[in-house]
Amino acid sequence: MHNIIIDTLGSDKGASAIIDGAKLILDEFQNVKLTLVGDEELVKKSGLDLSRVKIIHTTETITNYDNPVEAFYKKPNVSIFKAFEEASKEDNIGLISAGNSGALMVSAIRYLLDEKKTRPCMAAILPNMAGGFTCLVDTGASIDCSSSQLVEFAHLGSDFMKYTYKIDAPRVGLLSNGAEPTKGNKLVKETHKILNDDKYINFVGNIEGNAALSGKCDVLVCDGFAGNQVLKNSEGMATNLITEIVKYGKKSGGAKEGVAMEIVAHLMQTYDFESLGAGIMLGARKMVMKCRGSSGAKAIRNAAHILVNIAENKTIYDGEDKRGN
Amino acid sequence: MHNIIIDTLGSDKGASAIIDGAKLILDEFQNVKLTLVGDEELVKKSGLDLSRVKIIHTTETITNYDNPVEAFYKKPNVSIFKAFEEASKEDNIGLISAGNSGALMVSAIRYLLDEKKTRPCMAAILPNMAGGFTCLVDTGASIDCSSSQLVEFAHLGSDFMKYTYKIDAPRVGLLSNGAEPTKGNKLVKETHKILNDDKYINFVGNIEGNAALSGKCDVLVCDGFAGNQVLKNSEGMATNLITEIVKYGKKSGGAKEGVAMEIVAHLMQTYDFESLGAGIMLGARKMVMKCRGSSGAKAIRNAAHILVNIAENKTIYDGEDKRGN
Repeated sequence: MHNIIIDTLGSDKGASAIIDGAKLILDEFQNVKLTLVGDEELVKKSGLDLSRVKIIHTTETITNYDNPVEAFYKKPNVSIFKAFEEASKEDNIGLISAGNSGALMVSAIRYLLDEKKTRPCMAAILPNMAGGFTCLVDTGASIDCSSSQLVEFAHLGSDFMKYTYKIDAPRVGLLSNGAEPTKGNKLVKETHKILNDDKYINFVGNIEGNAALSGKCDVLVCDGFAGNQVLKNSEGMATNLITEIVKYGKKSGGAKEGVAMEIVAHLMQTYDFESLGAGIMLGARKMVMKCRGSSGAKAIRNAAHILVNIAENKTIYDGEDKRGN
Repeated sequence: MHNIIIDTLGSDKGASAIIDGAKLILDEFQNVKLTLVGDEELVKKSGLDLSRVKIIHTTETITNYDNPVEAFYKKPNVSIFKAFEEASKEDNIGLISAGNSGALMVSAIRYLLDEKKTRPCMAAILPNMAGGFTCLVDTGASIDCSSSQLVEFAHLGSDFMKYTYKIDAPRVGLLSNGAEPTKGNKLVKETHKILNDDKYINFVGNIEGNAALSGKCDVLVCDGFAGNQVLKNSEGMATNLITEIVKYGKKSGGAKEGVAMEIVAHLMQTYDFESLGAGIMLGARKMVMKCRGSSGAKAIRNAAHILVNIAENKTIYDGEDKRGN
């Protein structure tokens, strides 16, 4: 039995959305049991199969106004902190939370930091145009970075793609404003030189923004500020185009509207940010899935699916290519 | 007669593509004459109406391996430098070049810098989801920036949208990784405070990457590294989705393929990066349009169209909304 810890508080949609996700998981994965951190009464009333559920009761959450480091010491009952404390024990394959990113990072550093690492980073696995996936790292956990941090991200991303996607020598690219090695801000130019000399990294050089998801690299390295832009901008642009197609379909009406909606459904499956948008924390001793604040039941179920696959040494998504190529 | 200076060298497609653009301009705008900087013989053989063309002969160009500052002193015959020298005189409404960005910046600083400014910046005017346009600044001219530079970009962008798009108090947003004022890298946090206190700026706060082109602001401020990501990532994502629709159409065949191609045509018109992708240099004494290296005749014609509209105090695109809303 795989034990997965889920922080049921922290979703913008409320605890019931997360608990609905827990139900999907228990229904689908018979070899999974759950440790739910949150309101005991709510969980008990939810109709879950309690024979496979352990509850750690708390109703305390962290707000966007709390400083995560201060909160860690002053509010030990916050669900995220309790979930990480539990994850630091044996007998679990990882943790899922849709809570505050800062609190997740603080908890990971206190409870789960790999001793050889400076701090964990957050990766996102995004579909690329070559039909595969690109690991974008960091997506926002470390906003101001040094070059040595970026190099660490390169190693973490490369190892992750090697072990979970079974890619022999993952191609690592560095996000920049031009392909030439002389292009980039100070941080990128410095990092470029170090990665170039790193014999453990299959460095393929600078990658420009328009090629971020082209499939030219398996790991795309950047600081958390830039990575956040790539992630959110890609999503924003996808939403813009999809909205435009819906409008066009409605204006046209009839059979054309039908085809437009088919295309929208296809694109939404290909660029399904709810499935793919979960962040994966790298550099921690346990797998941590950070779902978005807006996550619903499906996102929680998908995060568990990834944890189970990793625990069973399968490639993520079972090698199933979501792009249908 | 409006005189427009065009650097005919510097396009990846060769001088003939730019000269074809010059032909489009002369055909369409009877009140425009051109000063073409480039190979005299080639221009003379091209069949242009030479009664409205002045030629400044040179065949020298700058390469990506040249340092633009050194080249400025060592290679005075480079077409970009000669074009800017000409632009610094009276009797012209601006300059169009598809050449090297670094060389454009150096030339602008030497020949056209507004005395009150530190250095010019490059803006891009992008279609947004609200049916209007957002001025993104800087798009890559200044890669490592200080907060005072970002504040200057805010003023330049705000003035531009006020005078050319006739927007009374342009809403200025600051690109960040979160909406809250506490979110951002060091540079963004510092800039946020200054913009907040600037009574000449209608500051609407931080804008996240997924809202970059939502229409929540008229001017989106960021350093050139981040701006380059927004610009290229938006384009890359649009290309990805359009490619996906084409593939879907081909796979479906028949009537569905027809509708898919109609949708593609609609999206390509809405997000027409060849038309809209030209950079506009702000903070110089003359209007400078930087077309992409890959620009063809149409991009050059569109750049001239913008210059004429600005010279005649019309809004850009004659207020015609390319999104058809």
